[in-house]
Amino acid sequence: MTIAFIGLGNMGAPMAHNLLKAGQAVVVFDLNNATVQELVKAGATAATSPRDAASKADQAVITMLPAGPHVRAVYENDDGVLAGVAKGVPLVDSSTIDPLTARHVIDTAAAQGNPMADAPVSGGTGGAQAGTLTFMVGAEPALFETLKPILGYMGKNIAHCGGAGTGQVAKLCNNMLLAVQMAGVSEAMALGVKLGMDPKTLAGVINTSTGRCWSSDTYNPWPGVIDGAPASRGYTGGFGTSLMLKDLGLATEAAKQAGQPVMMGGAAHQLYQWFAASGHGGEDFSAIVKLYSQQG
Amino acid sequence: MTIAFIGLGNMGAPMAHNLLKAGQAVVVFDLNNATVQELVKAGATAATSPRDAASKADQAVITMLPAGPHVRAVYENDDGVLAGVAKGVPLVDSSTIDPLTARHVIDTAAAQGNPMADAPVSGGTGGAQAGTLTFMVGAEPALFETLKPILGYMGKNIAHCGGAGTGQVAKLCNNMLLAVQMAGVSEAMALGVKLGMDPKTLAGVINTSTGRCWSSDTYNPWPGVIDGAPASRGYTGGFGTSLMLKDLGLATEAAKQAGQPVMMGGAAHQLYQWFAASGHGGEDFSAIVKLYSQQG
Amino acid sequence: MTIAFIGLGNMGAPMAHNLLKAGQAVVVFDLNNATVQELVKAGATAATSPRDAASKADQAVITMLPAGPHVRAVYENDDGVLAGVAKGVPLVDSSTIDPLTARHVIDTAAAQGNPMADAPVSGGTGGAQAGTLTFMVGAEPALFETLKPILGYMGKNIAHCGGAGTGQVAKLCNNMLLAVQMAGVSEAMALGVKLGMDPKTLAGVINTSTGRCWSSDTYNPWPGVIDGAPASRGYTGGFGTSLMLKDLGLATEAAKQAGQPVMMGGAAHQLYQWFAASGHGGEDFSAIVKLYSQQG
Amino acid sequence: MTIAFIGLGNMGAPMAHNLLKAGQAVVVFDLNNATVQELVKAGATAATSPRDAASKADQAVITMLPAGPHVRAVYENDDGVLAGVAKGVPLVDSSTIDPLTARHVIDTAAAQGNPMADAPVSGGTGGAQAGTLTFMVGAEPALFETLKPILGYMGKNIAHCGGAGTGQVAKLCNNMLLAVQMAGVSEAMALGVKLGMDPKTLAGVINTSTGRCWSSDTYNPWPGVIDGAPASRGYTGGFGTSLMLKDLGLATEAAKQAGQPVMMGGAAHQLYQWFAASGHGGEDFSAIVKLYSQQG
Repeated sequence: MTIAFIGLGNMGAPMAHNLLKAGQAVVVFDLNNATVQELVKAGATAATSPRDAASKADQAVITMLPAGPHVRAVYENDDGVLAGVAKGVPLVDSSTIDPLTARHVIDTAAAQGNPMADAPVSGGTGGAQAGTLTFMVGAEPALFETLKPILGYMGKNIAHCGGAGTGQVAKLCNNMLLAVQMAGVSEAMALGVKLGMDPKTLAGVINTSTGRCWSSDTYNPWPGVIDGAPASRGYTGGFGTSLMLKDLGLATEAAKQAGQPVMMGGAAHQLYQWFAASGHGGEDFSAIVKLYSQQG
Repeated sequence: MTIAFIGLGNMGAPMAHNLLKAGQAVVVFDLNNATVQELVKAGATAATSPRDAASKADQAVITMLPAGPHVRAVYENDDGVLAGVAKGVPLVDSSTIDPLTARHVIDTAAAQGNPMADAPVSGGTGGAQAGTLTFMVGAEPALFETLKPILGYMGKNIAHCGGAGTGQVAKLCNNMLLAVQMAGVSEAMALGVKLGMDPKTLAGVINTSTGRCWSSDTYNPWPGVIDGAPASRGYTGGFGTSLMLKDLGLATEAAKQAGQPVMMGGAAHQLYQWFAASGHGGEDFSAIVKLYSQQG
Repeated sequence: MTIAFIGLGNMGAPMAHNLLKAGQAVVVFDLNNATVQELVKAGATAATSPRDAASKADQAVITMLPAGPHVRAVYENDDGVLAGVAKGVPLVDSSTIDPLTARHVIDTAAAQGNPMADAPVSGGTGGAQAGTLTFMVGAEPALFETLKPILGYMGKNIAHCGGAGTGQVAKLCNNMLLAVQMAGVSEAMALGVKLGMDPKTLAGVINTSTGRCWSSDTYNPWPGVIDGAPASRGYTGGFGTSLMLKDLGLATEAAKQAGQPVMMGGAAHQLYQWFAASGHGGEDFSAIVKLYSQQG
Repeated sequence: MTIAFIGLGNMGAPMAHNLLKAGQAVVVFDLNNATVQELVKAGATAATSPRDAASKADQAVITMLPAGPHVRAVYENDDGVLAGVAKGVPLVDSSTIDPLTARHVIDTAAAQGNPMADAPVSGGTGGAQAGTLTFMVGAEPALFETLKPILGYMGKNIAHCGGAGTGQVAKLCNNMLLAVQMAGVSEAMALGVKLGMDPKTLAGVINTSTGRCWSSDTYNPWPGVIDGAPASRGYTGGFGTSLMLKDLGLATEAAKQAGQPVMMGGAAHQLYQWFAASGHGGEDFSAIVKLYSQQG
C-alpha cells in the first residue's frame, strides 16, 4: 500500500519522514529537488508531478502546502492530483487555508469519486519532527476512521471536527483565540510587572486562577517564566509571527464572509499586522509582548 | 483569640460564617443590621462600629467592602478600624480596589504599627459559601505566614503575590486577562458555529489545543457545552457582568496611571461597557457571547 | 460618437440617463431587461452582451458593477468587453473593487491596446441622479483629459488621483476614514448627550472646533441636528450600511495585502460588521449611532 | 473694575497678558514667582495667594490650572478663591478637567453666592498668545452674557455650551473625536501612500470628499502636505501628545462614569498611551502617524 505525499517544506518533509519511519511506502513530490532527494535517501520514491505521485498512491494522497491558491493548483491543474488519482483513493489536505477553498476542492474531489478530508495541524515544526502534531480533521465518519491510523504516524492527537471543511474552521477558531490570548497574556504580564510584581509569581497566580491558559502556563511570553519556551531563548523557534498573521488573516476573512463580527480577533489581527510590519515577522508569535514591555 | 470581620455583603457574610464554622471567635460589623443578626445567631458578637470591632480583635481584622472609598472610610474615619485597633494586630482587606488606594491605606496602617495585607479573592459567592476562594495576598513574608491559616478557613488557594499591594495587582491582571479570554472564546465559538461546527466538538478541539483556557474548558459561554456552567443555566449565578466591568475599570485605570498601554484589555472594557449599558449587567459575565450569537 | 454603458443598477441607470440628457449617443447592456427598456425609452440603444455593446462604442466604454468578480467577467469573458472593443477606445470602470483586481484588468486592457481608467464614485444614488457625483480617477494624464468631459456629464467633481489603480485606492482610503469618523462622531454625540448637552449645541461646538468633519457638519448621525440628513428621516436613503461594510472589507483586505496595519479602520470594520449582522444592513450608515444611544 | 487671574503657565500667562493689553486691571497669582514678575512688568498687580487675588477682584476671577486636584485646591483650600472672593463676583475656570470635579466646584461656589462657569479652551499656546482661543463655556445664559466680553479679550470664538459643566463635556467630546480622526487620517494616508498614491493628491481628494476634516485639511499629519502644520516642522509646537493623552484619559473616565461605551475613543486612548509610552509624549499629537508609516 502506497501513500503519496506532496509538499515537502518545513512541515511536510518531517511528516513524510515519519511515514517512512512507520514503515509505509511513500511516493513524494515537491518543486524543490533537494528536499525530494533527502526523502529518497530515507526510502521514498520520487514522482515527477502531483499527478504522477497521485497515480502511484493506492492508500492515500496527502498534501501540505503554503496557501489556498497552491492547493487549488496542486489538485486541479492538468498535472494535478485529481487528474492522476484512481477513483476511491482518499485525499487529505493538511494545509491551513480558508474554509471556502477547502470546501471547493473537497466537492470537486467528491464529484469524481474521491473522498477527501481537510486536516490542518498544530504543533509547529517541532511537533512535525517529533510526530506529535494535532490533526484537526474534517471528514465523514467512515473516512475519518480510514485516515486515523495514517495520521497517527505523524501526530498524537487526531481530532474529528465534523464533516468536510470543519478541520479548517476548528484550526482558524483555535488560532484566532490563541492570538487573542497571547496578546492578552502579554498585556497582563507587562501591566503586573510595571506595577511591581515578579513575573514568575504573577504567572503562577494566573496559572492557578481563572486566567490560566496555554499561552500563560506552557508558552508564557515573558522571558524566564517557562524554561524551554521561545521567550526563554530569544523568541526563536516555535510558531512564527508571520504564520500567526497568516492565520489571523484567514480567520477574519472567514468571519467577513460569514457576516460574523470578531472584535477581539480583529484587534489581535491588527496588532500582529503592526508587529510584523515593524520587522518582527520572523520571531516567535509570543514576541508580541515586546509591544508592551520595551517601550520606556 | 478574636477576629474582627467588617463588611457582611454577599461575599463577606459567608466568609464570616466559615470563620465561625472553623471555631474562631468573631466580632462583626455591618451597616445592615439584619445581616449582623444572622451572624450573631451563628455565634458572632456584634460591634457598634468598625472602631469598636477592631478594638475587640487580637488575632486579625478582616474587611470585605464594595470599593476604594468604602475602604478608606472604614479604616480612616474617626470611628474606623485604625482608631480602634491595638498596635501590632494584623489587618487584611479582601475588597477589590485600585492598587493606589490599597497602598495608601497599607502605608497608613504601617505607620501606626499595624502590618496590613491586601488579599482580594476570586471564586464568587459560590466559593465564599463553600470556603473554596482563592486569596491573592500582598504581604511581607512573615505577615503572609501569620495570615495563611486564617485565610485557609475561608479559601483553599492562598497565593502569595509579593509585598503589600501586589494582591490587587494580581487580581486586576488576572481579571483583565479573563475578560479578554471570555470575549475571545465567545468570538471563536460563535464563528465556528456560524461556519458549521458543533459547539461541543469545537470546544473539545480547543480544550486539547493551544487555545485551551478556563473560559473554554471550565466556564464555556456556549449553552450546553459545560454542565453546571452559568451558560447552561441561563447565565444566572457566577461572576456578574457588572462586577467584571468594575474590575476592567480598575485595571484600565491602573494601566493609565502606570503609563502602560492595554489594547486588548481596553477593547474588552468597552465591550463589557456596551453589554452592561444594554441591560445585561445582572447576568453572568460569560453572557457576553450574546454579542456574537444572537444578532440575526 | 457613441458611449457604451454596461451595468444599469441603482447607480448605473441614472448615470446612463445623464449621458443621454447631455446629448450623447449611448448603447447599453444589463442582464435585467426591464432596466434596459427604461433606457431605450430615453433614447439609448440596447446591446445583446458586453461584447456587443463594446463593439459599438467609439468614444468610451463605461462599466458600473457590484464587485470585482463581475468586473473580471464583464471584461474578460468570451462575450466580454475586451473581446468586442476596437483598439484604442478608452475604458472606464466606475465600480468600487479591490485595487489588485482593478490593476489586473487595466493591465490586460492595456496589453491589447485599450487605455483604461478606474473611476469609482462617491455621492450615492442621489448624486447619480442629480449628476453631482465625485469621480476618483486613476489614469495617465492624457487619458484623464480625454475622459474628464465625459465624466463631467455625470458628476461635478472629477478628481485625478494618479496612475491606473489609484482611483480605487483613494476611494477606499476615503471611505475607511469616513467610517472611522462616523463611528467617532456617533460616540462623541452620544457621550455628550448622556452627560447633559443639547445635541445641536454640541454639534455646533464641534463644527467650529478641531473635531469638525463632514460626518458632523453635513451628515450628523443624531436625529434633528441636520435637516435633510438621513438621521432626520429615519436613516433612509443615503449610503447604506451594507455598502459601507463592503468598502471596509475591501479597505482592510487591501491593507492586509500591503502589510499595513489599520487599527482604527479594523475596529470600524468590526463595528459595522456587528451592526449589519444585527439586522441594520439596509439603513443608512450613519445609523451606527444606534450602537451608542439606544442601549438603556 | 479688576480681574483676578490665577495660574500663569504656558497658557495662563499669555491669556493674562491679553487682558492687560485690552486695558483691564489684573491681579495675578502663581507659585512661580518669575512668571508673576513678568506680568507685573506688563502692568499686573501681584497677589500673595489665590485668596488674596480673589479678594481684590470685583469683575471676575479666572483660573487656568493643570488638573482637577489643582482646581479643587485653588478654590477650596483655606487660602483659596472661595475664602476670599466677595459674594456675587463671577468665577471662571478655564482648566480642562473632569466634568464631575467641575460640577462639584461650581456647586460649592453657587452655594456661597458666586456664579461660576467652566470655560476650557482649544487653540493651544499659539492661540493663547494671539488671543484667538476658542472658549467652550458652560454657564447660565445671564452669566454667559456677563463673561462673553471678558473672554473675548483672550479668544475669538466664545461658544455657549449650555449650563454649568457643559464646557468640559464639549471639550472632552471634541477632543476624543479629534484623536479618533487624527489616528484615522494617519491610517488612511499611510495606507494610500503604501498603495502608491502621492500624499498631497490623496489629501486633496479626501479634503473635497466625505472624509474631509480638520485633521486632514488643516493639520494633516503627513509631512509636506500642509505648510505650517506641525508635521511640516518635525512635529514640534502644536498640541502635544501628552496633552491629548490627558484629555483622552478624562474622556474615557467620564464615559466610564456615565456607563457609556466608547469603542473608537477607547482604541484611540490606547494608541496614544502606546505612543506616549514609546517616548513620543513631547511631540505634537499628529506624530501618531509614525505608528503607521515608519515601520519597515
